[in-house]
Amino acid sequence: MDIHYNNSGIVPVIAQDAKTGRVLMLAYANAEALSLSQSTGYAHYFSRSRNRLWKKGEESGHFQKIEAIRVDCDADTLLYIVHQTGAPCHTGYETCFFRELDGKVIARRLVNPDEVYDKKDE
Amino acid sequence: MDIHYNNSGIVPVIAQDAKTGRVLMLAYANAEALSLSQSTGYAHYFSRSRNRLWKKGEESGHFQKIEAIRVDCDADTLLYIVHQTGAPCHTGYETCFFRELDGKVIARRLVNPDEVYDKKDE
Repeated sequence: MDIHYNNSGIVPVIAQDAKTGRVLMLAYANAEALSLSQSTGYAHYFSRSRNRLWKKGEESGHFQKIEAIRVDCDADTLLYIVHQTGAPCHTGYETCFFRELDGKVIARRLVNPDEVYDKKDE
Repeated sequence: MDIHYNNSGIVPVIAQDAKTGRVLMLAYANAEALSLSQSTGYAHYFSRSRNRLWKKGEESGHFQKIEAIRVDCDADTLLYIVHQTGAPCHTGYETCFFRELDGKVIARRLVNPDEVYDKKDE
């Protein structure tokens, strides 16, 4: 399927936990990241802040093994269904969406933030 | 909480079904859309293609009643937890992510596409 990358050559990617259904994070992929995600079976993204390819967990060990990759109706957003090792979030929480809008924390911290070397990238 | 809108004044919003955990769609919100989502209890977005505020379901009746709004670690992505009426997708499927990358359909069509007046916006 032809993916509609934006003018910067990337698409947003939602990562969802295969077992719990939890939405883990939103990141971005370019064509190379998507290709590597397919060929290796591990989630790859494109870091906008570092302007480079990024294998999730490459520094932290908190990999995402891919079960499926889905594409939305107009092919400009991807959904990675993943098996997460450790914590998806650089804060150590079980999801990047660990807060309500008012700041109330509604998720568990799985990992001490000092142990999370894989900084959040977008 | 201060939301980090991008240079265009919008943030991506993931909509997730409160009951099934299904990821329904990715859209975008500006400050007004977020504010209206909070004050009315129904999902509002900002349509990039139409350059205007958009209440989900305003034409189709396929509203999203909001149960919770969450924000990610760096406050530049939102997660709407919603109760979906009808179909979230303009194709009539139960999710915009109804296809695998190879095109295989993995979701149910709830509504005849001819009856879905609310075109996909981003």
